[in-house]
Amino acid sequence: MRTIDWVDGRIRIIDQTRLPAELCTIDIAEVPELVRHIRSLAVRGAMALGVAGALGMALAAARAAEAGADLDPALAAAADELIGARPTAVNLGWGVRELLLARAAGADAEQLLGRALAIRDADIAVSRALSERGAQLLAGSRTVLTHCNAGALAGVEAGSALAVIARLHADQPLELVYSCETRPLLQGSRLTAWELGRLGIPCRVIVDSAAAGLVAGGGVDAVVVGADRIAANGDVANKVGTLGHALAARHAGIPFVVAAPEATIDSATEAGRDIPIEIRSEDEVLTLAGQRVAAPGSSGWNPAFDVTPAELVTAIVTEARVIRGRPDRALPLPADLSQLTPAGPRTTAG
Amino acid sequence: MRTIDWVDGRIRIIDQTRLPAELCTIDIAEVPELVRHIRSLAVRGAMALGVAGALGMALAAARAAEAGADLDPALAAAADELIGARPTAVNLGWGVRELLLARAAGADAEQLLGRALAIRDADIAVSRALSERGAQLLAGSRTVLTHCNAGALAGVEAGSALAVIARLHADQPLELVYSCETRPLLQGSRLTAWELGRLGIPCRVIVDSAAAGLVAGGGVDAVVVGADRIAANGDVANKVGTLGHALAARHAGIPFVVAAPEATIDSATEAGRDIPIEIRSEDEVLTLAGQRVAAPGSSGWNPAFDVTPAELVTAIVTEARVIRGRPDRALPLPADLSQLTPAGPRTTAG
Repeated sequence: MRTIDWVDGRIRIIDQTRLPAELCTIDIAEVPELVRHIRSLAVRGAMALGVAGALGMALAAARAAEAGADLDPALAAAADELIGARPTAVNLGWGVRELLLARAAGADAEQLLGRALAIRDADIAVSRALSERGAQLLAGSRTVLTHCNAGALAGVEAGSALAVIARLHADQPLELVYSCETRPLLQGSRLTAWELGRLGIPCRVIVDSAAAGLVAGGGVDAVVVGADRIAANGDVANKVGTLGHALAARHAGIPFVVAAPEATIDSATEAGRDIPIEIRSEDEVLTLAGQRVAAPGSSGWNPAFDVTPAELVTAIVTEARVIRGRPDRALPLPADLSQLTPAGPRTTAG
Repeated sequence: MRTIDWVDGRIRIIDQTRLPAELCTIDIAEVPELVRHIRSLAVRGAMALGVAGALGMALAAARAAEAGADLDPALAAAADELIGARPTAVNLGWGVRELLLARAAGADAEQLLGRALAIRDADIAVSRALSERGAQLLAGSRTVLTHCNAGALAGVEAGSALAVIARLHADQPLELVYSCETRPLLQGSRLTAWELGRLGIPCRVIVDSAAAGLVAGGGVDAVVVGADRIAANGDVANKVGTLGHALAARHAGIPFVVAAPEATIDSATEAGRDIPIEIRSEDEVLTLAGQRVAAPGSSGWNPAFDVTPAELVTAIVTEARVIRGRPDRALPLPADLSQLTPAGPRTTAG
């Protein structure tokens, strides 16, 4: 089952807000409906959002064509709505812009759909390529820590960080993967633990703040995470909490590896300080399961992401290359890996 | 209202598991009942547990005396039960042993109660003394981050880290205190936010993993936490997540200050690696508000504490002194502060 797909003229997504209790799909016929599901995180994750951006634009074009309306205003409106749904997620905007480029080159609604489906298919190939490269880099790791969900549910079929972990496990069974629960929305506890269970990989869920002690105590061999946006200088925006894991990995001298498609690299953004950080509703912090837990009168602050500076990143693994970050005594990189290079042109990999 | 007290021949505690929704007290007549409430964290926090240990022993003596039984076997049994309730909390054992020493010196049940009440009263004086010293150290801070609850609810009347924050605010109003929610049991969101509200100090609750980004981004001037046990070399065991905040503070170059009574310093424990870390039930991680949220089949790992190495600690503030840790470019300590000294003999401050 695919996390996001095109079925009978609509976008079909797995509703991740209902996992792991229920596995449900939603068929989406209109862009505002898709925007709502992107905001609620029913569909989420860098790679899946790239596909969602492209399919969302194809959906807008299809509806406009059916109504005999002009495609261009419909596409412009859809682009604004989609990009505004998650401002930090560069892949979402990338998917949208790929379709605008295709339209500028003269594509009609049908051809736009073809372009979006190619982006969907490329996502699957990207996962495979980066998982092989990442597993080669981390070969010999027996225990791994990951954060949030950068798995199948964050892509079309396999994702990024969890694709690396799955490949590592296929090469030589892992002893244990620690999944941070990932407050406030618990993607690690709900989604990553669910995916690891389906993959047959032993998993333990920890509260996010237990990671530093685990890493400092030698409890894991490596940290592997995804990314929502990577600046041109190698700074990485990812789910809030990622920076803390990078600091702990640096303290312990273990590799901190980011697995992400090339499309996550935003060469137009110079450094992490230029990445807009989405601030979500304080209710996500102040309530649990719909019940208020915080003391009455208190307020919350709820950034969805943080920025890990490039100097804390051992390596960024994409479908095309390994971008070497900080030197790492615990990870002697093979000599044939590509060295740090400026962010190249984006692939059409999505 | 006191967090823990002796009323009409019983121990009275505020039931912290019901805060902030309800403010309830429990009167405890027997040691096993007290042990149960210590385990459930109805009464918690280093300083309060020292008083709980002493009052628990006085309770055992009172019940034995009423029954005409020999005090010594009753006290020996109570000591084992109480110390076993929270193995990492050195103050609990300290309070118990203070009463055993008094008994060894010939105290009867009434005199044992007198000793326990003196420990209770000393706790209040300790909070005052360390809050003054801590506020002097951090004078000029406008925004502060704290973790878990080291406030009135963790002592008899004022606590440690929150006593410092309250004193800072009294000297010059703070702009904002960030309280980490402190998964899994949310002492920060439930208890610290509640106390800050009562003190009239502006407070924002964040998920624990948002702290690193906040600190790295210059969002706070200092981090202030309590401690559950401090080894002779200055390593600090405190609520899980503390180490991550210390790493973030080091990364950002801001002070990381530990406020704790002298009784928290365990000179018999050489270093952090020798401190036993309590591992609590995985259910605290896998469920929220009594409902399972983690994927079916997944397991959890739930350490209650972590250890922050001394080199990450700017200063430890007690009722008697400032123990200077790492040099800190952001915190030019006044010249008259005492320098790093070996942990001295424990005071009778509780």
